[in-house]
Amino acid sequence: MTTHTLTATHEPTVKASSWIEQLGATLSSDNPGNAANLFEEQGFWRDLIAFTWNIKTLEGRSAIQDMIDATMGYARPHNWKLEQDATENDEGVVEAWVTFETAVARGRGHLRLREGKAWTFLTTMVELKDYPEKRNRLRPKGAEHGANKNRKTWLEKRQQEEAELGNSVQPYCLIIGGGQGGIGLGARLRQLDVPTIIIDALPKPGDTWRNRYKSLSLHDPIWYDHMPYIPFPENWPVFTPKDKVGDWLEMYTKVMELNYWGSTQCTHAQYDDEKQEWIVQINRNGEQLTLKPKQLVIATGMSGIPNIPDIPGMDTFKGEQHHSSKHPGGEAFKNKKCVVLGGNNSAHDICCALWENDADVTMIQRSSTHIIKSDTLMELVLGGLYSEEAVENGMTTYNADLTFASVPFQIMPQFHIPAYQQVAEHDAEFYQRLRDAGFLLDFGEDGSGLFMKYLRRGSGYYIDVGASDLVADGEIKLKAGVSIKQINPHSVTLTDGTELPADLIVYATGYGSMNGWAAKIISQEVADKVGKCWGMGSDTTKDPGPWEGELRNMWKPTHQDALWFHGGNLHQSRHYSQYLSLQIKARMEQIETPVYGMEPVHHLS
Amino acid sequence: MTTHTLTATHEPTVKASSWIEQLGATLSSDNPGNAANLFEEQGFWRDLIAFTWNIKTLEGRSAIQDMIDATMGYARPHNWKLEQDATENDEGVVEAWVTFETAVARGRGHLRLREGKAWTFLTTMVELKDYPEKRNRLRPKGAEHGANKNRKTWLEKRQQEEAELGNSVQPYCLIIGGGQGGIGLGARLRQLDVPTIIIDALPKPGDTWRNRYKSLSLHDPIWYDHMPYIPFPENWPVFTPKDKVGDWLEMYTKVMELNYWGSTQCTHAQYDDEKQEWIVQINRNGEQLTLKPKQLVIATGMSGIPNIPDIPGMDTFKGEQHHSSKHPGGEAFKNKKCVVLGGNNSAHDICCALWENDADVTMIQRSSTHIIKSDTLMELVLGGLYSEEAVENGMTTYNADLTFASVPFQIMPQFHIPAYQQVAEHDAEFYQRLRDAGFLLDFGEDGSGLFMKYLRRGSGYYIDVGASDLVADGEIKLKAGVSIKQINPHSVTLTDGTELPADLIVYATGYGSMNGWAAKIISQEVADKVGKCWGMGSDTTKDPGPWEGELRNMWKPTHQDALWFHGGNLHQSRHYSQYLSLQIKARMEQIETPVYGMEPVHHLS
Repeated sequence: MTTHTLTATHEPTVKASSWIEQLGATLSSDNPGNAANLFEEQGFWRDLIAFTWNIKTLEGRSAIQDMIDATMGYARPHNWKLEQDATENDEGVVEAWVTFETAVARGRGHLRLREGKAWTFLTTMVELKDYPEKRNRLRPKGAEHGANKNRKTWLEKRQQEEAELGNSVQPYCLIIGGGQGGIGLGARLRQLDVPTIIIDALPKPGDTWRNRYKSLSLHDPIWYDHMPYIPFPENWPVFTPKDKVGDWLEMYTKVMELNYWGSTQCTHAQYDDEKQEWIVQINRNGEQLTLKPKQLVIATGMSGIPNIPDIPGMDTFKGEQHHSSKHPGGEAFKNKKCVVLGGNNSAHDICCALWENDADVTMIQRSSTHIIKSDTLMELVLGGLYSEEAVENGMTTYNADLTFASVPFQIMPQFHIPAYQQVAEHDAEFYQRLRDAGFLLDFGEDGSGLFMKYLRRGSGYYIDVGASDLVADGEIKLKAGVSIKQINPHSVTLTDGTELPADLIVYATGYGSMNGWAAKIISQEVADKVGKCWGMGSDTTKDPGPWEGELRNMWKPTHQDALWFHGGNLHQSRHYSQYLSLQIKARMEQIETPVYGMEPVHHLS
Repeated sequence: MTTHTLTATHEPTVKASSWIEQLGATLSSDNPGNAANLFEEQGFWRDLIAFTWNIKTLEGRSAIQDMIDATMGYARPHNWKLEQDATENDEGVVEAWVTFETAVARGRGHLRLREGKAWTFLTTMVELKDYPEKRNRLRPKGAEHGANKNRKTWLEKRQQEEAELGNSVQPYCLIIGGGQGGIGLGARLRQLDVPTIIIDALPKPGDTWRNRYKSLSLHDPIWYDHMPYIPFPENWPVFTPKDKVGDWLEMYTKVMELNYWGSTQCTHAQYDDEKQEWIVQINRNGEQLTLKPKQLVIATGMSGIPNIPDIPGMDTFKGEQHHSSKHPGGEAFKNKKCVVLGGNNSAHDICCALWENDADVTMIQRSSTHIIKSDTLMELVLGGLYSEEAVENGMTTYNADLTFASVPFQIMPQFHIPAYQQVAEHDAEFYQRLRDAGFLLDFGEDGSGLFMKYLRRGSGYYIDVGASDLVADGEIKLKAGVSIKQINPHSVTLTDGTELPADLIVYATGYGSMNGWAAKIISQEVADKVGKCWGMGSDTTKDPGPWEGELRNMWKPTHQDALWFHGGNLHQSRHYSQYLSLQIKARMEQIETPVYGMEPVHHLS
């Protein structure tokens, strides 16, 4: 890491240094809990596994003191340092990057100070001291110099590993799901020398993307989407078309040397409490196998299992009907009457592609949707951290991720609401046109916009890349505030009594919670023990309380031993795979990992 | 590009600024040739296509003035600027990075000033102003936002291009040879929207590496080996094993969307002077095709066609004999008597692998060899520009390449001789052990070591990764200063009369000049018109004079219209493909490209 200069006389640096020094001294003292007084009364300490071996936000002095009292005995933090000069904004918020060590790890953090007290403090684990990643100065030598009669070449070793792992040698970790999440996590585990197999039902890495509807592209821009270790190159498009994402993942899997088993399904998994290992039944290309990994990661997509509504008459329908996840694209539906149930991202994309293929399309929007134009999202929301301009200003992907992570979820809305007020003004005419067409619009229940909706419920929005104009212009027909009451052989009847002729019905009705996968693969009992995944208890639609302050069950220990959930968008998969991989590595090396602050289960799905 | 601060009072910056200002003013004046007086009497101006549309070093004021008089009328340079603060070393050499524009291009340069006069000056073309590369801020958008009834997806466009190019649509450029050279150049041409096909006789990209002997790894370290656009990741090994290089090239070809035809051979090529295009006969997987590209690049390796010596009795030999390029590795030769003719890189690697497989190996070293230990090469020669430490110090690959390019070949030995004197001292004991074993050692005719030997003759050295100890210890038997006089059915007779029993003979006897490929593919007449490739007329072994000052025929116009040679190690292929791709793009766009200073042909091979 490049060293930066600290300026002894730079006022924000002096303030941050003094705080960090007090923190370090107090945490090492006989009364470490006093360090809570260095925080604002309502201050936040967010910890990504450095102290809690959990993903946890402590809210307020009392919660912070409890965590300190419980963890500092074994964490033993020391060597706190400012990484570079701190900054201070117009509102007197001092921001600083921090490094530190614990007994077993190196960490990095971010501090926001107001009037000498910490408003927010983020601590993250970077690496385990005894198991540093083999990169940069520690990268492997590759060629083994010298002469050696027992030499095995790189290729021979890779082939041997492929032949043995899952057969004569058990993987320590099994990842179910080979999308960007499973692959990125697999790369991090490989770097940490954790023997891992990734399985996926489709034949090749990237097929999860290739198999989606034809017009799909990433809706997030490239700066937000990098995988760990190999960033997209400088000529890569801003919004990657789905087949190009597929090719990237395929090559990534190859060059990162991941053990990826395509055309492989998990038919059942069961935890052996005594042996502390999973017994996993696998169908690999028709061959039945049993794997016995110590850790099991479900990385089948944060979206879980497709929700298909149960509508009277579905079985009588003579046309084609499928969930959006199975939609092949618009080509086969020229001049057909198409009904798309839903009003979020997939619904818009599919309606647009159907329209482009001269289908007659009606969108059934059941409830209100948040819409943001892609360009506006870039300009007013993401650009500061994830854009070419941010890169030119020296913002690395890693620092952008940590900056994003440094804002506790409880106060994230107050960071976002003003931005979305700007968005509403910026595109006022556009939103008025949509409203005039009858479209039900929202900006989230508290006006906090896209990302909060994504975090709370993983749905309820569309990043507009063109379909909204078609809706506003009536090119995509709209029925809003209704649903489908009844399906007939050649039509659907809506809840307002309207009957629409239909050759195709697409259920763009979203997905269930990820623990649905646990139910399917393991048992309903384990799914219920683990509880709902995603959401943080914001007490808004589809995210019932109580408040938990972090995403439920994601990337952190669950109530089922050795079971983990990994997923999210490319940004989250990239960033949180770091903490998940370190948690798994620590368990493999039998480092003590006392988990602080597990939340009880409040919801089953 | 990040902007750097210029400090108005920093003395080296003041000196460099003043020089650059004078240069700009003089070149724009009525007597631009006077700018030659800003150079030392024996100063150098090296130009990589920015002014000369050639790769050319002007040596001394008079040559510089001639170039200026001939080129500045159309080049019209302006907007000369220092890129960042200049530096000054203990010997009073001021170094500075420079940017400038010409009528058609943006350029970047490097200056060494001594007492106010330029000692060396490098100017390079970075991009054509009207055809900037689509990267960073200009990267493509990818997804086409909006609704469009004629939408083609990325995949459909790629498939259409693959179906049409070479069939209904002719490529503008054909690259023969799909190793790292052809692939890297193909990537740059794709970035410049030059329709290009790369052909290779082997099925898949990377197979040129996979097919080599088993123990092969890159002898150069990773920092030296990056491809354009996608650097190797931070976890990549220092010395990449050959099969891993193969995988990287295969994925690179895919994600850079190159039109790569494997299992394809060029059977004949002929230039149609009237139509100004090539008529190229192709065998693609058994199908005969004719391509008509405007530009033809031979990228079959700077090594040219294998040299196989003509030794009496070769046809009577009952064992196996092959050129090093066909050697499969040592496995098949356990307990066999093996004779390897040659004492350079391949000979050492092959002897070592045979020894590792328990063969009885004798190396026949005909003439002296330069040996440098790999670790020492890194530590004392390459490390300043290409190492993890250099990266940490902020040295980018691009700046390392330009720094390397900034040293004119005529004075390069004086930069290298002291380094190799250090090498000789550093490893004195090692070299003594080799001499004691009878090994014929050299450091180049003027003591300038590895890289000069590589530039002059592309041979005559071994980067020691382990075989030299086997030679010193007698594990690899050595016959030095002799050659093979006669081959018998089961033995070879050496020029000193010794007879060695032999089951295997490997001819590690190097390669001919690249224009041998022109003879093979086009005609002897064209090969002779073009003349010898590589070497710069140093008047040392295998590099006869007269002095030309640049590598013959490499990456620059030849005496055959529209015929180009591309090759070299990974560093050279990466860096010089930039200039070759710009030369080809300029011709495609019919930008005037008057070539200054073509050298006459002095040698045919």
